[in-house]
Amino acid sequence: MKIRFYNARILTMDGNCDLTEGELWTDGEKISYVGPAKDCNGENWDREIDCQGNVLMPGFKNAHTHSGMTAMRSFADDMPLQEWLNTKIFPLEAKMTEQDNYDLTCLAILEYLTGGVTSIFDMYLSPKDIARACIDMGMRCVLVSGLNKFGPSVEEMERRYLSLNGMHPLISYKMGVHAEYTCDRALLEEVSALLHKYQVPFYTHMSETKLETDECVERYGMTPPQFFNSLGLFDFGGGVYHGVYLTEEDMDLFADKKIGVVTNPGSNTKLASGIAPVGRFLEKGLCVGIGTDGPSSNNCLDMFREMFLVTGLAKLLQKDASAVDAHEVLKMATVNGAHIMGIPEADVLAAGKLADVIMIDLHQPNMQPLNNITKNIVYSGSKQNVKMTMINGKILYEDGKFLNGVDAEAIYAKANEIIARLSEG
Amino acid sequence: MKIRFYNARILTMDGNCDLTEGELWTDGEKISYVGPAKDCNGENWDREIDCQGNVLMPGFKNAHTHSGMTAMRSFADDMPLQEWLNTKIFPLEAKMTEQDNYDLTCLAILEYLTGGVTSIFDMYLSPKDIARACIDMGMRCVLVSGLNKFGPSVEEMERRYLSLNGMHPLISYKMGVHAEYTCDRALLEEVSALLHKYQVPFYTHMSETKLETDECVERYGMTPPQFFNSLGLFDFGGGVYHGVYLTEEDMDLFADKKIGVVTNPGSNTKLASGIAPVGRFLEKGLCVGIGTDGPSSNNCLDMFREMFLVTGLAKLLQKDASAVDAHEVLKMATVNGAHIMGIPEADVLAAGKLADVIMIDLHQPNMQPLNNITKNIVYSGSKQNVKMTMINGKILYEDGKFLNGVDAEAIYAKANEIIARLSEG
Repeated sequence: MKIRFYNARILTMDGNCDLTEGELWTDGEKISYVGPAKDCNGENWDREIDCQGNVLMPGFKNAHTHSGMTAMRSFADDMPLQEWLNTKIFPLEAKMTEQDNYDLTCLAILEYLTGGVTSIFDMYLSPKDIARACIDMGMRCVLVSGLNKFGPSVEEMERRYLSLNGMHPLISYKMGVHAEYTCDRALLEEVSALLHKYQVPFYTHMSETKLETDECVERYGMTPPQFFNSLGLFDFGGGVYHGVYLTEEDMDLFADKKIGVVTNPGSNTKLASGIAPVGRFLEKGLCVGIGTDGPSSNNCLDMFREMFLVTGLAKLLQKDASAVDAHEVLKMATVNGAHIMGIPEADVLAAGKLADVIMIDLHQPNMQPLNNITKNIVYSGSKQNVKMTMINGKILYEDGKFLNGVDAEAIYAKANEIIARLSEG
Repeated sequence: MKIRFYNARILTMDGNCDLTEGELWTDGEKISYVGPAKDCNGENWDREIDCQGNVLMPGFKNAHTHSGMTAMRSFADDMPLQEWLNTKIFPLEAKMTEQDNYDLTCLAILEYLTGGVTSIFDMYLSPKDIARACIDMGMRCVLVSGLNKFGPSVEEMERRYLSLNGMHPLISYKMGVHAEYTCDRALLEEVSALLHKYQVPFYTHMSETKLETDECVERYGMTPPQFFNSLGLFDFGGGVYHGVYLTEEDMDLFADKKIGVVTNPGSNTKLASGIAPVGRFLEKGLCVGIGTDGPSSNNCLDMFREMFLVTGLAKLLQKDASAVDAHEVLKMATVNGAHIMGIPEADVLAAGKLADVIMIDLHQPNMQPLNNITKNIVYSGSKQNVKMTMINGKILYEDGKFLNGVDAEAIYAKANEIIARLSEG
């Protein structure tokens, strides 16, 4: 497919947050041109789209999620994290089949498309089924291992690493573990050995709650980052999810080791985990991305809500209305996410980059007047403003409709069947 | 107009948050029937609408806003409250004409309609022009005086009270002042005398920032609630906006005097004002409503975002994931708002109540599966889920379109012209 978008305002996210008027062309999976309108006679377009002054920008990178948890959306709310995991989530997950995970991931993907999310960093059960759902639905996905003492084995993680990387242009796979509190030292040492074998980055939930952090200090005399670092787990970079209770020393370590932090303010808020010191992360020079976390702790998969929370909670925490401004947040939700996820080819809009592009509708009352379009997007934007979502050069969602024959109602029906079955008896 | 909605899930908000399957009928401005499907042969419907299992619920009450501030959306962000007001907002407002206020209120109303807001509690310049915009656009509006030492006079407030109440079924007017820090004692005493003449409730911004509260204590030796109460301003009930820094004694006073509190978490977050102790308000038995505040401090007029923030910030503040649950929040956003605004005839869905009704689209991925629909609305809902907004028996917004010949593009163009003119020179 060769598509020409014209009459657009373009937010490339390359360097700053300025918008320019012009065109964006795609050729297959990639962007072939971004810039002012120019002669395109002789091009054989499959489609030419008049953007009517709307914004084209890189799609959002949801840099931490558990897509298959859609079954448990609003299934168990208003509970503390550990009780919620142990009494509600783990028992259901034990009954979940691989096909369930596929179907539930499809439901999440529909939601990503409605909200302009073009790639996800997904840690959940049976990654091959997540990959299958993403390939079938057209979603770009970086899978990450959630290995812990209940499974899978380190050998299985290695097999997944070898089989899932390179299997499809939309799919890649990263090594990682669920969290310190679900792994023992011997297991972490095995993981570290494997990281060193392949010299690859490492990802994990980390310092999400005060309890988790305190217990790690009690067990090992070190904070989770310091403990993991002592095992060599951060020797090839990577990232952590949450990071609510990172200390100054933890941040210095991450700056030194080039470890990114993915903040998850919706989940941290709803589970009362706390406010991550995002402003301090930036001062320390850390690369910060944004993720929704899973739909049973959030409960939605909406990067607009997350963006407002990132800046708003930083302002509250720092008692400073100028903290972590809109431009920083937009960068986190796009460029930084791509870098932490290891897909720099999807970070900005430029010729040669992957065609993961969304259109933001300015012809909506919440985007008017046009005093500052990027601030409008962060402070006033909503999923309602997502007019189009394109991934890998393919338009998957446009004007409120899922394209390419996707049967959303069938996916909803399956999700309802699955939770009815899982919660039986 | 007589409209029959059938095949609906109905959330009446009358008593609890249970949904029932059935129908809702309207006759002119009012609801004529809510209940199970029943024989309606012989009725002459103007329209019959198949709700396809979607939710009908009372529209949201935006219980604190300054609609005409749409011009200043994303005009000046990331600044402290007082600096923002004094250097950016007040100079522009001084140049704003009555027609500007009309046009800018029309823009806000478009946004309310897209988000399912069916009535607003609006404090801004030239209330007759706000009223004119609301009547022309079909929005229900409770106007409230923002009197302060720069105007209008108490005599003018009395004239407005007499002329605006009863002028139109969509419009009413309440007495109030802007805030303690913009009024002197003599003026407040005059206002109190007028309240006593008519025996009417009173409304004001109050205890929004720590600075405001501290300065009042310094000036008068009393917190703002205690000072206002000493002048008799709370003798006939009413409400306050914000209330971030209310003390235990202030809350007891409000419980005793039946003063409602409208919380504005989006604005308090973005301006770094603080987190209102909403859970404590509820424990004290206060009636709590929700408002967006104005679009230049928020920057959007989205009750879904506010609802998530009310529960989320309460959870963070109380370090308790069960704090202020979804059902409490839905009640605040609908029933309580109506009560604080003095429009109890618009609080719930029942025969004889005003037909201020919205339809929530469940055929969207963020609303699936249907484990708990009301929790889905609060924790996962977005403006994208608003399929229809009806006010006073008239459908104003449906399937993403403004009805009744509204020219949204012309309203957007005017808003852009206005801010260009106001910010000149």
